[in-house]
Amino acid sequence: MTKLLILGGDGFCGWPTSLYLSARGFDVVIADNLSRRRIDKDMDTDSLTPITTPDERLSAWQEVTGKTIEFVQLDIARDVEGLQDVLSAHRPDAIVHFAEQRAAPYSMRGLAEKLYTVDNNISGTHNLLALVAELGLNPHIVHLGTMGVYGYDGDGLEIPEGYLNVKVEAPDRETLIDRDILYPTNPGSVYHMTKSMDQLLFQFYAKNNGLRITDLHQGIVWGTQTDETRLDERLINRFDYDGDYGTVLNRFLMQAALGHPLTVHGTGGQTRAFIHIQDTVRCIAMALENPPLPDGKVQILNQMTETHRVRDLAKLVARVTNAELAYVDNPRKEAAENDLKVSNKTFLDLGLNPTTLEQGLLNETVEIAKTFSNRARTETIASKSVWTDEQKPGVVLKRDGQKRFKLRSRSDKAA
Amino acid sequence: MTKLLILGGDGFCGWPTSLYLSARGFDVVIADNLSRRRIDKDMDTDSLTPITTPDERLSAWQEVTGKTIEFVQLDIARDVEGLQDVLSAHRPDAIVHFAEQRAAPYSMRGLAEKLYTVDNNISGTHNLLALVAELGLNPHIVHLGTMGVYGYDGDGLEIPEGYLNVKVEAPDRETLIDRDILYPTNPGSVYHMTKSMDQLLFQFYAKNNGLRITDLHQGIVWGTQTDETRLDERLINRFDYDGDYGTVLNRFLMQAALGHPLTVHGTGGQTRAFIHIQDTVRCIAMALENPPLPDGKVQILNQMTETHRVRDLAKLVARVTNAELAYVDNPRKEAAENDLKVSNKTFLDLGLNPTTLEQGLLNETVEIAKTFSNRARTETIASKSVWTDEQKPGVVLKRDGQKRFKLRSRSDKAA
Repeated sequence: MTKLLILGGDGFCGWPTSLYLSARGFDVVIADNLSRRRIDKDMDTDSLTPITTPDERLSAWQEVTGKTIEFVQLDIARDVEGLQDVLSAHRPDAIVHFAEQRAAPYSMRGLAEKLYTVDNNISGTHNLLALVAELGLNPHIVHLGTMGVYGYDGDGLEIPEGYLNVKVEAPDRETLIDRDILYPTNPGSVYHMTKSMDQLLFQFYAKNNGLRITDLHQGIVWGTQTDETRLDERLINRFDYDGDYGTVLNRFLMQAALGHPLTVHGTGGQTRAFIHIQDTVRCIAMALENPPLPDGKVQILNQMTETHRVRDLAKLVARVTNAELAYVDNPRKEAAENDLKVSNKTFLDLGLNPTTLEQGLLNETVEIAKTFSNRARTETIASKSVWTDEQKPGVVLKRDGQKRFKLRSRSDKAA
Repeated sequence: MTKLLILGGDGFCGWPTSLYLSARGFDVVIADNLSRRRIDKDMDTDSLTPITTPDERLSAWQEVTGKTIEFVQLDIARDVEGLQDVLSAHRPDAIVHFAEQRAAPYSMRGLAEKLYTVDNNISGTHNLLALVAELGLNPHIVHLGTMGVYGYDGDGLEIPEGYLNVKVEAPDRETLIDRDILYPTNPGSVYHMTKSMDQLLFQFYAKNNGLRITDLHQGIVWGTQTDETRLDERLINRFDYDGDYGTVLNRFLMQAALGHPLTVHGTGGQTRAFIHIQDTVRCIAMALENPPLPDGKVQILNQMTETHRVRDLAKLVARVTNAELAYVDNPRKEAAENDLKVSNKTFLDLGLNPTTLEQGLLNETVEIAKTFSNRARTETIASKSVWTDEQKPGVVLKRDGQKRFKLRSRSDKAA
């Protein structure tokens, strides 16, 4: 039985992944420091869905499926000895690494959150790699990265999977020399910066120690439930809708459920990549079945299934929910409008049949946002993070009802 | 008077830089955690030259020149509040940042040293950048990086200063799109990896917060004394000759002074960039006089003056000292032979007149290595670090006297 260590296995992606892989016969051990639950308390917010404690979740899983998942409370960034103990005791065949602070707005909230995000993400990832090398283990390490490392200043190029082929002028100033390089990153937040730095950690340990690493550059994950988390109400997955951890679609759904206008940052011309949580867990299983050779190169895959402009996403949600739109100042320092083309050939070739927003959105609205809207703390929906001092968040500039939908002049120009 | 904060100002480059800039009228504050002195004690080694305590050094400087340098003992990686206090109290016009663990072999010594190097270098640098942004300060930050971030798998290209122009195939598969990117790094040790990661920290804080940053990609520094450290014996600079902190030239000089053969790793075909410590301090002063615009881009300069193959360096030392050569297994995982072409146009254009090895080597041999050879602890000269488990360091394969100098067969092939 394949022994699988899932770091951050209590989180939004980690939990359904743990169940999916346990259901498919992996012997799963979860290690998690429960920081996501702690941060909710610190920020006086909570998952919209009523998630149960780790103990309750795991007991329910055993009760429903007869399968056991072991849980270890562990901070891989701070407790090197604890991580060493877990690695030595289990000697996992594969490790899925979700254990990083994963919200861009949270990473920009203030000094403490910036320092925490860098310390936590870099130390945690490096501790893992250095220990795996030191202990002479040979697990396939699957890491969750982000599309955001690429930045969003696109010039029409398709973002490839893996390395980017570039040509550099030779000293003769005439011929061009080919090089395959890590895609030059241009992160837009401290969080994205740490994921860019992770790439250099992986590059080094793959080259120097032959570690087998797959880095999944994931789009924005939407959806809440998977086939496994639906099996019992105690297995329900978390749904974040606050300004820090709630991704754009969840905030729209929540605002719609509460009868608030959907707040679009800037012109809403930002194009982003998306993937449903059910496809996330499938992709991770596919990645585990296809480890890279220990050839010194990291396997980089783009884990996303569709791209949308934020304002089109808002319109889609507005259509399903009959909500209004409101354009607000953008607290982020980013391009007002950008294109985004991404190759996701590997997972499509491996048989991924994506759940599209068009298909899944209504279900998500009814099953989650409406059902649990009574649990919402409305004051947490707006982001309180600003990227620079000049920026003030969440100021409503103009509201448009769905039927008299009209872009502001500067977005008209840009569009 | 320009207020200057020098982080790591007690170290090998930091100390002579502090004196040089104090002598030229800067109001210098040194912050240093004295980790370099602590690591010497931990490894049971010491500077060959008898360096005095920070207090003695600074008193001597005042006695000799009438100038005052303030000293704060501070760990910028661990003591965020302390760093905030220093920044708030002094509001420096410029900051020179040497405060990183700077030895590649030390960073590969074992698990503890790998983790320490990453934690210390990344947290320290990020704490500085995040605090400067948070406090709304606007200093010119001059950071000491390394030529080693580029890696040594060169394909004949000259390493530019600043960004690398590359061409990427457009979606039409015919036209090429130009991009200026950070030079794709290919670090060969955990130490070099941290300096590569630093580049991403600088890129982000320059772009997002408009910080003015100059990153000096420095070659291997040789030489010990500068005009200022020679003013009084209590001001003498450190000379490292141990296998971890002693760079290749210092180890050769020490081995020669002790009548040992010069140990060349592998074929000695590795080409590296060099600069004399006197030129280092001049370059830093020139960099301070030429800050970048706050245009969102880091200013990257190559701080080196000449390149040599290690075996040619060994021959040069052997000629001056009449020493023998010994080829030993290479403990590092690196190309046996490489070319290296580097642009250092900026500093030459600014008037740098380099001290060459050809000119300065004899002086260094007599002034330092011979004078203090009685203080040497010979057992510390060989590196105890190995890059991978398969590598064992320091095994002498063959000795050749200077006159019957002959490369081993595998280096003959490679050369």
